[in-house]
Amino acid sequence: MPLVIDIHTHVYPPAYMEMLRARKTVPYVHDPSNNKDPRLIILSSDDDPSIPIDQRGRPVDSSYWDINVKLAFMRQHGINCSVISLANPWLDFVEPSDAQMWAERINNNLEETCAGVNKAADPGNTLNLDQKETLFAMGALPLSAPSSGIVVNEIKRLKTLPHLRGVIMGTSGLGKGLDDATLDPVWQALQDTDTLMFLHPHYGLPDEAFGGSDATSRYGHVLPLALGFPLETTIAVTRMLLSGVFDRFPRLKILLAHSGGTLPFLAGRIDSCIHHERKFISGGGDVQGPQRSVWDVLKTNIYLDAVVYGKPGLEAAMAASGSDRLLFGTDHPFFPPLDSKEGDWPSVSTNYNAIHATFDTDSETVADVLGGNAARILNLE
Amino acid sequence: MPLVIDIHTHVYPPAYMEMLRARKTVPYVHDPSNNKDPRLIILSSDDDPSIPIDQRGRPVDSSYWDINVKLAFMRQHGINCSVISLANPWLDFVEPSDAQMWAERINNNLEETCAGVNKAADPGNTLNLDQKETLFAMGALPLSAPSSGIVVNEIKRLKTLPHLRGVIMGTSGLGKGLDDATLDPVWQALQDTDTLMFLHPHYGLPDEAFGGSDATSRYGHVLPLALGFPLETTIAVTRMLLSGVFDRFPRLKILLAHSGGTLPFLAGRIDSCIHHERKFISGGGDVQGPQRSVWDVLKTNIYLDAVVYGKPGLEAAMAASGSDRLLFGTDHPFFPPLDSKEGDWPSVSTNYNAIHATFDTDSETVADVLGGNAARILNLE
Repeated sequence: MPLVIDIHTHVYPPAYMEMLRARKTVPYVHDPSNNKDPRLIILSSDDDPSIPIDQRGRPVDSSYWDINVKLAFMRQHGINCSVISLANPWLDFVEPSDAQMWAERINNNLEETCAGVNKAADPGNTLNLDQKETLFAMGALPLSAPSSGIVVNEIKRLKTLPHLRGVIMGTSGLGKGLDDATLDPVWQALQDTDTLMFLHPHYGLPDEAFGGSDATSRYGHVLPLALGFPLETTIAVTRMLLSGVFDRFPRLKILLAHSGGTLPFLAGRIDSCIHHERKFISGGGDVQGPQRSVWDVLKTNIYLDAVVYGKPGLEAAMAASGSDRLLFGTDHPFFPPLDSKEGDWPSVSTNYNAIHATFDTDSETVADVLGGNAARILNLE
Repeated sequence: MPLVIDIHTHVYPPAYMEMLRARKTVPYVHDPSNNKDPRLIILSSDDDPSIPIDQRGRPVDSSYWDINVKLAFMRQHGINCSVISLANPWLDFVEPSDAQMWAERINNNLEETCAGVNKAADPGNTLNLDQKETLFAMGALPLSAPSSGIVVNEIKRLKTLPHLRGVIMGTSGLGKGLDDATLDPVWQALQDTDTLMFLHPHYGLPDEAFGGSDATSRYGHVLPLALGFPLETTIAVTRMLLSGVFDRFPRLKILLAHSGGTLPFLAGRIDSCIHHERKFISGGGDVQGPQRSVWDVLKTNIYLDAVVYGKPGLEAAMAASGSDRLLFGTDHPFFPPLDSKEGDWPSVSTNYNAIHATFDTDSETVADVLGGNAARILNLE
């Protein structure tokens, strides 16, 4: 059996849940009066006053904060190792003066959780990844801090924590998106420390994109989650490309959630639109366009998770970045089965099946995507 | 040499240009004072008062309205037959009382143009598509008309015009999107008359999706055209799916521009989000979700053009819908070379090359995608 590593799996540590419980605006946690599971309200579209507060957002259970539940989920689904990351919206909303404290607290907590689990899995400390479930983690960044120096310091500090293997980041950056030049010290620090950045969506698209709030909510979360999330990721990384981030930091390593949102599929159109843009110097204008092509960046800087739920997406991801840059993930604990959580999760088996269907009889590539790539790229051995 | 048929190629007939010239709000045409090419301002983001009006929008030349220029383009690029369609924004903005008149005028004009060209190509009327350039057309619909009955009548009338082979439509429908139940008579008429509907973007995404109007315009048209357009198409067809249009009209035939926007790539995520949606009856809620799966619709109702500028997109399109539903197109006269229009257009050769790279040595499939599929599906022989 190949080693299976899940690089897209989230946690809300207990301290983070308590912080959300103390809030009354998005993001927040509400405990219903009926003793049912707490409600997590993290999307502004979920904070709809016309919905009773006990039904707002989504129910969350212990799978979101109890690491033992995640370990049981891993065991059930044949996952040997998980690289856990704080779930959205991370620390984006934290008061500037509290950002550093929260980043350190969360990241130290992640380190302790991983260390404790791995020690229990392997008391003799002769780490053998395919024996018991083990954990590594990606850190959270204090992006709302008063200065980017605080972010840079935390990136450097993470290298001293033995189980930290990268950082997770949303699309807002320091508040103005990822093409904001004031992020350059952050990109520099990520590049200098050879730290993988996991880019993950949270904010989606404005309701008007879906025909207004009525149209958006008519189909529950389908439009914001199925289309808004992947587009948010695509827009963010395209703005990075267009503003020259990959020209200035050619060794940045970015893992894109959900197989790149839609980047592999749209890369050709992005490339063509850049080549036909009159505003860029290459098109006769006066704005410096990107110097490196999206194709080059996809094969040099970008890694893609395999959380795309089907063969067409994986085919595009493989053609754009190569199967050696594709990494298995689950998005746990999101998308649980709606009936019972006892059996296998369809959201997981769909992705397993898609990997097998795409790479067919090439068992070596299947093994690479399921775990070999992650072990190599994140140095998990 | 295989027959090459271009199913994505647009015209602004002279009468339409005159109508745009008479307007002062988007969409409109402005003739610069310097005797240069007229400017076409069709996107609201282009109607920026801070840009001198002589530089607003994009320059358009005779390739947009002179059919002889299109025929020369076809000859140069080895295209035997083009299925021309009115370019965006079609008749979406026309006064309700004028809609029927304009639809009839445009569609009769398209019919006459095709008939004249084909007669000249083949005076003996023994139509042999691989001899000379020939034309067919997709009609425009009077969607702003006071009643859907006027739209239905025009769909039926188009069947009496020998060179009309479908209709082109934007994403606004009767003004409320394509999940609007008042469109049902239109879907019924399209299904009953076995008329292919070419779904094409125009409105893109709100500027906020790209970080506001400054961020959007910073990179010229790249973000709205490369990302906004494909997402608009994806959202529109997903709303059709979610509202049950394909359940009620299981024989609808829809050709999606730009290889489906991003539908092939996101189909798996859409399917997963539907299966995990608590609002739908299948998830314990009280809203009827779609009964047919996106995978079924992709292989039964959807056709995809091959205007996606790269192998990853074509791989996804093929995996989602099959190579027998994929049709070559150019998007002419948009995306001309920025330097000189004399040589081959890179926007065309990129798509040619992607088709050859994707289907490699399978010359039969290459021939199907380049023309065989279109000839069969649109009955062009």
